[in-house]
Amino acid sequence: MGVNSNRVEDFSSHRINTESVMPGMEIHTVCLSPKKTTLQKLKQRLSEIFFPDDPLYRFKNQTWRQKLILGLQFVFPIFQWAPEYRLKLLRSDIISGLTIASLAIPQGISYAKLANLPPIVGLYSSFVPPLIYAILGSSSHLGVGPVSIASLIMGSMLSETVSPRDEPILYLKLAFTATFFAGLFQASLGLLRLGFVIDFLSKATLVGFMSGAAVIVSLQQLKGLLGISHFTSKMQFIPWSWQTIVMGFSFLVFMLTTRHIIGHLPKGLNPPSANMLYFSGPDLELAIKTGIVTGILSLTEGISVGRTFAALKNYQVDGNKEMMAIGLMNMAGSCSSCFVTTGSFSRSAVNYNAGAQTAVSNIVMATAVLVTLLFLMPLFYYTPNVILGAIIISAVIGLIDYQAAYCLWKVDKLDFLACLCSFFGVLFISVPMGLGIAVGVSVFKILLHVTRPNSLVMGNIKGTQIYHSLSRYKEASRVPSFLILAIESPIYFANSTYLQERILRWIREEDEWIKANDRSPLKCIILDMTAVTAIDTSGIDLLCELRKMLEKRSLKARLSPNQSHLALVLANPVGSVMEKLHQSKMLDSFGLNGIYLAVGEAVADISAMWKSQPDFPEDCNETRQCKETKR
Amino acid sequence: MGVNSNRVEDFSSHRINTESVMPGMEIHTVCLSPKKTTLQKLKQRLSEIFFPDDPLYRFKNQTWRQKLILGLQFVFPIFQWAPEYRLKLLRSDIISGLTIASLAIPQGISYAKLANLPPIVGLYSSFVPPLIYAILGSSSHLGVGPVSIASLIMGSMLSETVSPRDEPILYLKLAFTATFFAGLFQASLGLLRLGFVIDFLSKATLVGFMSGAAVIVSLQQLKGLLGISHFTSKMQFIPWSWQTIVMGFSFLVFMLTTRHIIGHLPKGLNPPSANMLYFSGPDLELAIKTGIVTGILSLTEGISVGRTFAALKNYQVDGNKEMMAIGLMNMAGSCSSCFVTTGSFSRSAVNYNAGAQTAVSNIVMATAVLVTLLFLMPLFYYTPNVILGAIIISAVIGLIDYQAAYCLWKVDKLDFLACLCSFFGVLFISVPMGLGIAVGVSVFKILLHVTRPNSLVMGNIKGTQIYHSLSRYKEASRVPSFLILAIESPIYFANSTYLQERILRWIREEDEWIKANDRSPLKCIILDMTAVTAIDTSGIDLLCELRKMLEKRSLKARLSPNQSHLALVLANPVGSVMEKLHQSKMLDSFGLNGIYLAVGEAVADISAMWKSQPDFPEDCNETRQCKETKR
Repeated sequence: MGVNSNRVEDFSSHRINTESVMPGMEIHTVCLSPKKTTLQKLKQRLSEIFFPDDPLYRFKNQTWRQKLILGLQFVFPIFQWAPEYRLKLLRSDIISGLTIASLAIPQGISYAKLANLPPIVGLYSSFVPPLIYAILGSSSHLGVGPVSIASLIMGSMLSETVSPRDEPILYLKLAFTATFFAGLFQASLGLLRLGFVIDFLSKATLVGFMSGAAVIVSLQQLKGLLGISHFTSKMQFIPWSWQTIVMGFSFLVFMLTTRHIIGHLPKGLNPPSANMLYFSGPDLELAIKTGIVTGILSLTEGISVGRTFAALKNYQVDGNKEMMAIGLMNMAGSCSSCFVTTGSFSRSAVNYNAGAQTAVSNIVMATAVLVTLLFLMPLFYYTPNVILGAIIISAVIGLIDYQAAYCLWKVDKLDFLACLCSFFGVLFISVPMGLGIAVGVSVFKILLHVTRPNSLVMGNIKGTQIYHSLSRYKEASRVPSFLILAIESPIYFANSTYLQERILRWIREEDEWIKANDRSPLKCIILDMTAVTAIDTSGIDLLCELRKMLEKRSLKARLSPNQSHLALVLANPVGSVMEKLHQSKMLDSFGLNGIYLAVGEAVADISAMWKSQPDFPEDCNETRQCKETKR
Repeated sequence: MGVNSNRVEDFSSHRINTESVMPGMEIHTVCLSPKKTTLQKLKQRLSEIFFPDDPLYRFKNQTWRQKLILGLQFVFPIFQWAPEYRLKLLRSDIISGLTIASLAIPQGISYAKLANLPPIVGLYSSFVPPLIYAILGSSSHLGVGPVSIASLIMGSMLSETVSPRDEPILYLKLAFTATFFAGLFQASLGLLRLGFVIDFLSKATLVGFMSGAAVIVSLQQLKGLLGISHFTSKMQFIPWSWQTIVMGFSFLVFMLTTRHIIGHLPKGLNPPSANMLYFSGPDLELAIKTGIVTGILSLTEGISVGRTFAALKNYQVDGNKEMMAIGLMNMAGSCSSCFVTTGSFSRSAVNYNAGAQTAVSNIVMATAVLVTLLFLMPLFYYTPNVILGAIIISAVIGLIDYQAAYCLWKVDKLDFLACLCSFFGVLFISVPMGLGIAVGVSVFKILLHVTRPNSLVMGNIKGTQIYHSLSRYKEASRVPSFLILAIESPIYFANSTYLQERILRWIREEDEWIKANDRSPLKCIILDMTAVTAIDTSGIDLLCELRKMLEKRSLKARLSPNQSHLALVLANPVGSVMEKLHQSKMLDSFGLNGIYLAVGEAVADISAMWKSQPDFPEDCNETRQCKETKR
């Protein structure tokens, strides 16, 4: 597989000397990328797939002792920020920690109810997971706890099979098992550096998905909401600070003055629940499925929230490390009576606005919840069901983001379609199906773009070497005898047939235009390959076939004077395309006068060539190395 | 949704006058595409998806009478070539027709056996379908008949459920029903102009798929092949002409001298079989599934073969019309005792080499088969099974295209992987699963390219306005204070996170390089958007976030002198990207000094600006319109 790069770099010697024709214009040769073995290429490709952020760059050129410290900091980010922790940060952290605790208590109870779990589980879930996240997590502002979407999905998926009222113990077991698998799934994604899996849940599909889920829950809860529709409906959007603490206490007072009873809330810390996990039995599949769906959803929320606030404070959150932190925290949670938790948007926003500086605010929150669990539990004995309903609806109503949907409609109709599909999929089919449809539509969108890529005719912008779309730029003008086509996509099996038809149609239309306007006949087609970022074997066949067809046209042209000779040249192929052209021997047929560094150079060189040797395109009739496609 | 295009085209007025700084250098404004309504855009998009070849262009500016004639010619291409048919073409067509007939008879018998059908069905299938194709088809060189791959798949899929030996009538019924559904599926694809569906079977996956299928069949037939392994093993590759006819007759003689009996072959024309189709019952699903799989495979072969020979003779084959022709011919075939037929590669190659000029050669072949069916049938009474085995193996061995596989390995490792997957999928799992895996791998390849796009640092090629990859071009050199990044992919939800990490890493690495080499600090990042052919809402968020992060860095920079100010500008966004930036209001934040027509202009303009107003990047701190991502 020796790359005969001399052959390629020698182009220049075959180029005619244009200096005499156009003084000052130098034609540059197109290079191949530096030679690499298959193994080197594989290594580079894999490191781009799995380690795009080069996570070990800090370890370069360090002593062993420093590497050990760095390694410890890498696995436990707490070692990174704890030694630098100053007492003056503590004040902010305590305030923000107490603030989110005051949010965590009613939210925890409501979300547990959303998942059809005993309310106390919601409080337990605000105690253990934040502590573990504080040790492992790399975000300083993430407020950890149960979130509406995951709770909601867990509730609706599990209760389809097991009734939480008739079989409460089995249901609880299933919930903890699902939480365990959610954590296992999340941690594995992080460990295997497959973080990009969650990238396939696009924002558009998530908007639709969450809205659909929110509508379902709101309808379910609506019966509980009689007359108290305005309570806390803005909860997620109020700028929180010390006022919030006051609100939290007011809520406690309010609870004491109402009468409806949510049931007995036991005093005391999280009881262990490892014995409640089960790894066999008929419902194991359901638990795993629920775990994966809730795991991926909570991961998406946690990581995107972490990234949002990290961007605001200009630090970076390592996606894969976050996955491991969230995953381990859920696995630990499943053994201490917690259900699925992650970085919550509302809690993190409150945390950030209340001035949180480090993960200490999570520790403060956990401590506040601890105190509540130990001493204040009887207060919640009186939490009215109707208020829980209100909290739930207000939380999920916030998930119906019609503004985002409108924005999608305005900016991208296909994104909006994806959003609609996932909305109705969740609403009328089922949660996993809705999620599946959502991902399917997003993937379809990518494929559609690849299958039907844009191609356009370019013209020269006067006085420059810039070539641009004729339809977009009035300043751009056609170059006589040239048809310059830009193809805006990789050339793949999925679009090579389309592109062939489309290019031939461009040529046909150009011919017609020339005939109608009585211009000089078409003599050369330049394909601007700048945006052709990849090519596969079908794409190479396309180029080959196209050249062959235009060549046949040239042969015909000798007989009938109506059709002109047609040469096909490529401008600016990117590195990977160039390499493939070389490996497939296409370069040998294209090489001599067929590949240029830029459209401008191609135009200049070929024009010069026409002047010096008027029958240039006959050059193209040399033997082609294209093999015929055999099926 | 009014596009405020004045706002955008007014950029130039905000640009500082660079004429004084760089005489002769004019900075151009970036335009939006011409304004279009949503409906217009939808119309254009749909016509690109379904009518890329603009099939009705001939109808423009014609009288009604001409439109009628053109319409007739459009639906029945025979009206296009028949009026111009000259007797001197007839000689070539008769020779080629007889030649392919001599191939059709043994092939038909063998392929019918491959599908576990009575041998006579193979002959019937070389009579009706070619006649129908001659009327409807647009290729002049396609030789129509049963093909190995579809016969093989039909045989193996049907006989998994129904034994052809124990229930021959049911099996036959199933085969005709599957043929009907294959035709229906093909014709619908053509009618709905969904021809691009077959594009998803890439050449790479087909190579693997066919090889796997061939290995299965060869193993099945091997027992029949005792000692006669060299007979006709080169059959597909011999240059055919009049010699072939001689060979055909020799074959007849050979058959008469051998003794093994294949069974009774009834004299007479195709009996009707419409009454054997059934549209209910337990095996209907199997028939439909078999129909779709064989339909899509035979379509792929037929269309790619048609295109190959059309390219050689420089005419065009309309994919969607071909689908309808092949589909209708199969539907008609299923009612006249034929099984799945299509344009066969071997038959078409023979037809082409024997000098066929029009579809008349198919009519001649059908006539020759007719004569055979009426008068010569008893001759075939003695066709030896062992020879059929040899024909079958020689046909399918030709499908194992190890050269193509080697070529894939050399040019594209991922294509080779797709090929391997489909090979082993078919061999060890099942035919539909193998096909599914094959398509899955191909799609995965596209997604991988989108998920992990290439990005590279560019430098200026001295003395030009061309900017190119630093790693590929030794002539390219860095522009001090600038980091010019090219992104080689659309920016989508699936890669926005990756790209953000990657771009920040490029900046970090550049900073380190600058520190190590003591160069002038980084002041501006130019994203070359030429190859960013599309952007979605997540992509816009990425740009927004990136700007925000670099802005924060600028704020920090005032406090610590180690980090420099950083501006982010875009160069050469394509039409659709520009439009989305505008619709999402990103343009308003980027607009003033943020978008340039080309990298060269950006560098010139910004350098000039730095000279005239040294604290330029402070500009960037104007209020952003980016909304925070809310989840």
